[in-house]
Amino acid sequence: MKTVGILGGGQLGRMMIEAAHRIGVKCIVLDAPNCPAKQVDGGSSHIDGSFKDADDVKRLADLCDVVTTEIEHVNTDALEEIATRVDVQPTADTLRCIQDKYLQKQRLSARNVALPAFLDAPNSDTILEAAKQFGYPLVLKSRTLAYDGRGNYVVHSESEIPEAMMALGKRPLYVEKFVPFKMEIAVMVVKTLDGKHYAYPTVETVQKNNVCQLVYAPARISPSLQEKAQTLAKEAVEAFTGAGIYGVEMFVLEDGTILLNEIAPRPHNSGHYTIEACATSQFEAHLRAVVGLPFNEGNTQMATSSTHALMVNLLGTEDPEYVNRIAQRSLTIPGATLHLYGKDKSTKGRKMGHITIIADSLGDCEARYAQLLAGEKEGAEKASVEANVKKPLIGIIMGSDSDLPVMKTAAEILESFDIPYELTIVSAHRTPTRMYNYARSAASRGIRVIIAGAGGAAHLPGMVAALTPLPVVGVPVKGSTLDGVDSLHSIVQMPRGVPVATVAINNSTNAALLAAKILGTSRPDLLKKLQAYMDKMESEVLVKAEKIESLGWREY
Amino acid sequence: MKTVGILGGGQLGRMMIEAAHRIGVKCIVLDAPNCPAKQVDGGSSHIDGSFKDADDVKRLADLCDVVTTEIEHVNTDALEEIATRVDVQPTADTLRCIQDKYLQKQRLSARNVALPAFLDAPNSDTILEAAKQFGYPLVLKSRTLAYDGRGNYVVHSESEIPEAMMALGKRPLYVEKFVPFKMEIAVMVVKTLDGKHYAYPTVETVQKNNVCQLVYAPARISPSLQEKAQTLAKEAVEAFTGAGIYGVEMFVLEDGTILLNEIAPRPHNSGHYTIEACATSQFEAHLRAVVGLPFNEGNTQMATSSTHALMVNLLGTEDPEYVNRIAQRSLTIPGATLHLYGKDKSTKGRKMGHITIIADSLGDCEARYAQLLAGEKEGAEKASVEANVKKPLIGIIMGSDSDLPVMKTAAEILESFDIPYELTIVSAHRTPTRMYNYARSAASRGIRVIIAGAGGAAHLPGMVAALTPLPVVGVPVKGSTLDGVDSLHSIVQMPRGVPVATVAINNSTNAALLAAKILGTSRPDLLKKLQAYMDKMESEVLVKAEKIESLGWREY
Repeated sequence: MKTVGILGGGQLGRMMIEAAHRIGVKCIVLDAPNCPAKQVDGGSSHIDGSFKDADDVKRLADLCDVVTTEIEHVNTDALEEIATRVDVQPTADTLRCIQDKYLQKQRLSARNVALPAFLDAPNSDTILEAAKQFGYPLVLKSRTLAYDGRGNYVVHSESEIPEAMMALGKRPLYVEKFVPFKMEIAVMVVKTLDGKHYAYPTVETVQKNNVCQLVYAPARISPSLQEKAQTLAKEAVEAFTGAGIYGVEMFVLEDGTILLNEIAPRPHNSGHYTIEACATSQFEAHLRAVVGLPFNEGNTQMATSSTHALMVNLLGTEDPEYVNRIAQRSLTIPGATLHLYGKDKSTKGRKMGHITIIADSLGDCEARYAQLLAGEKEGAEKASVEANVKKPLIGIIMGSDSDLPVMKTAAEILESFDIPYELTIVSAHRTPTRMYNYARSAASRGIRVIIAGAGGAAHLPGMVAALTPLPVVGVPVKGSTLDGVDSLHSIVQMPRGVPVATVAINNSTNAALLAAKILGTSRPDLLKKLQAYMDKMESEVLVKAEKIESLGWREY
Repeated sequence: MKTVGILGGGQLGRMMIEAAHRIGVKCIVLDAPNCPAKQVDGGSSHIDGSFKDADDVKRLADLCDVVTTEIEHVNTDALEEIATRVDVQPTADTLRCIQDKYLQKQRLSARNVALPAFLDAPNSDTILEAAKQFGYPLVLKSRTLAYDGRGNYVVHSESEIPEAMMALGKRPLYVEKFVPFKMEIAVMVVKTLDGKHYAYPTVETVQKNNVCQLVYAPARISPSLQEKAQTLAKEAVEAFTGAGIYGVEMFVLEDGTILLNEIAPRPHNSGHYTIEACATSQFEAHLRAVVGLPFNEGNTQMATSSTHALMVNLLGTEDPEYVNRIAQRSLTIPGATLHLYGKDKSTKGRKMGHITIIADSLGDCEARYAQLLAGEKEGAEKASVEANVKKPLIGIIMGSDSDLPVMKTAAEILESFDIPYELTIVSAHRTPTRMYNYARSAASRGIRVIIAGAGGAAHLPGMVAALTPLPVVGVPVKGSTLDGVDSLHSIVQMPRGVPVATVAINNSTNAALLAAKILGTSRPDLLKKLQAYMDKMESEVLVKAEKIESLGWREY
């Protein structure tokens, strides 16, 4: 097995080494003594020094078969030099190109990767020139040494330019057109030694002051948009040489356009969720890629079909006890895993650790996250969380409020099983647009089953079924004529290809039970409750049977 | 935060330290230099020595706030002595009692914990006495220094007694009545400092030569038996003092009786699956318990409702390359996580590591496990795996073979979605017992949805629905009279409490699509396929529309 030298021993190196132990890869870290990575390894050959120092880098190379990195701001000249003796993954060329954001974008642009428009802008004249082309606001960016948003400045008018240049210091600058994105997303891409690319799921990153606060896995966008992002991310990584994992950050615009933001040639904050949520973590993926161990599509998948994750960065605040308090509280939250990085001092904005919350849905993750922050005033992430309500899993809809007396029993049954639902009126004939929108959006809003009740020419259940991949349960509601047989036939006799799960006339109890049974196929807890419900029905009848037998039918 | 001293630095200590890093607990290990646990920690204060040496134990105590153990064969006298100065969890009394299996069973028996009958049997006379009481076969066991089955001998007749005594050496002996169990199971129980008990899921252990080969999580027994085992395990652990995690091994007999086998006062091989499969691992649970960090019921749950795990021990064989080969192959298996323990030499039977396979069902775990061992001659575990076939998720049943022409379309649709199913004939009226057994066993066999087709007085779907908590889809099959309306009404008009998801007459296509949609509620991959199916239907009609418009309806 090859020995891997790692430039940098922060939290990324630390988590890389944890993976290395499990798969039997020996690692040697170059960084300061007692850095987070060295704390978790008993190997004595680590090097105390700096990944920016050429001699230190060469000393590391002498001990290793492969040299890789957990940070992009390394000495690339030294890397180039040692590449004649050891494997360097990813390559010095890749790191050098990515260190300079302008060069990075030029390379991506040359390969037609979709990007916000950008221009070199070394001085105020060129910035003004760019402003003419892009308009305001525009984003003034530092080409080098920019990470976690340090090095970005949104300029709203010409008068702000001097201030922006001052803030960015003496670093070389370029300008990007401001992109009014609706969401920031990211994809981790693994490039193997033989040049294959594998994409992890598309995740959503919630940033504040350009620092990642939360990661939703998967992103709350449609599956087809998620796939589009994975494809774009893989295309972007193809522009660079060298094996390893790459973090690819992107913007999603209102119209569904996806633009590349930037790339990190290493494990990335937006990929921490993979430790608990995916078959193989980004850290193990990186190691496997750089030493040439097997890796395939299966390694990038979510651990199970119902795995959802919310990753919370544990950032220092002005309250020195904040991190400790949240870390302790995380131990009481179901499905939360705490990762502390072994850093001594919690200063404002410092990444002290992270917490990954796993649950069956992102709604459940959010509810647990709200528990985590309960009572906190601080915690920038707090604001971004939606209300601590359980997201509905079942949608109950009916054609008219006159159906409510029949349909409300479904709601009562769902409440008795503690299943969150929503209930509303959607008429196929009187509100066709509303029906269309309801049915089309239901799956992406997290609804898992729709219960639709209708009477007469009862089109609602079938029309909704035609518009959603979700299972639809139909309740024929009895009208004033024909005894409900009209509704029953209208609901049940659907053409091939579009099923409606039809229950008995007026029997919304059974519709709700059926919906519960459907959820029960993936929830053993619910299956157990359903069995208990059946047992209760049975014993109720048995009590009556005993009574009728002991009293005699005349007395009964 | 308290510093924890760990007696023993094998793989259990190693995985404990990995958990400790994440939650910020400092650990000091007492064991040989470069033992597995010390390899994964950069702390310099570890002690080279032996957990059996009183002086070494005292030296460790001087550096810690809490002393705990990863192995039960420690110096309990020394532990008792240091308990006056530091916290010892679990207690010396617990370790001493558990070290002697006879004393362990006496204590459990005194608390009415269900056990196989046992008798002290220091010599051949007492063994013969026990044989009179228990009959043959009986199990001769060593009271002390027995683990991984070393120290057990099944005696089939009086003539084998001398041989058995020889094999067990000079250790003190006792006799247990032979229990014809159908399954071995285990539960990890956490005892907190304030005396609360929390049970992890019940798992099934597959043993060969008394060494654990495989662990199925959860065990393949009914939910109520699983709960019974958790309750028994908690009762057993109540007999011992001191915080920490306890591994409780049990037998399940044919009639559902559960008997306690033995207890380990530490993390346990049967709990390794918790690292990937549960909210919180057994190692983190142990640390939290002994230092008094929060722990609750939620920490013991499976990570998601669809998480299933198969843990495979990586044991050395006579082939020195075996472990390496399996370890490498595990990297190609989706959902498999490799854990190597950092041991140099792979000798026969040595625990070199383990692999945990996570999937949506135990059937999927087994299929992946079969892939892992593909082509291997060795690997004792191989034999225990069921055939490498996908377990059916859908059961298609019909009242008569005359229904097959209608029902076979359902099978074809399921095949097109790659959903494993079973298809058979079950008649409510002609094979009522078969119907009863089919419906009762379906859920525990892994079936998630039943599709039942029937004609005329079509009772099959409703009767099956009355016997299972699973969702049942009913297909009314059209008979020679009444156009199928008889079947439709018979299937759809179920009483409150027992729903059947009824589809159109003869429309088994829709029944299969509905079943797919039901599985799709917990499987995004399937939901995507269903959306694609709908898109295809749409485009097929659009093509026809274009043709009719361009050709004109006369030509069409």
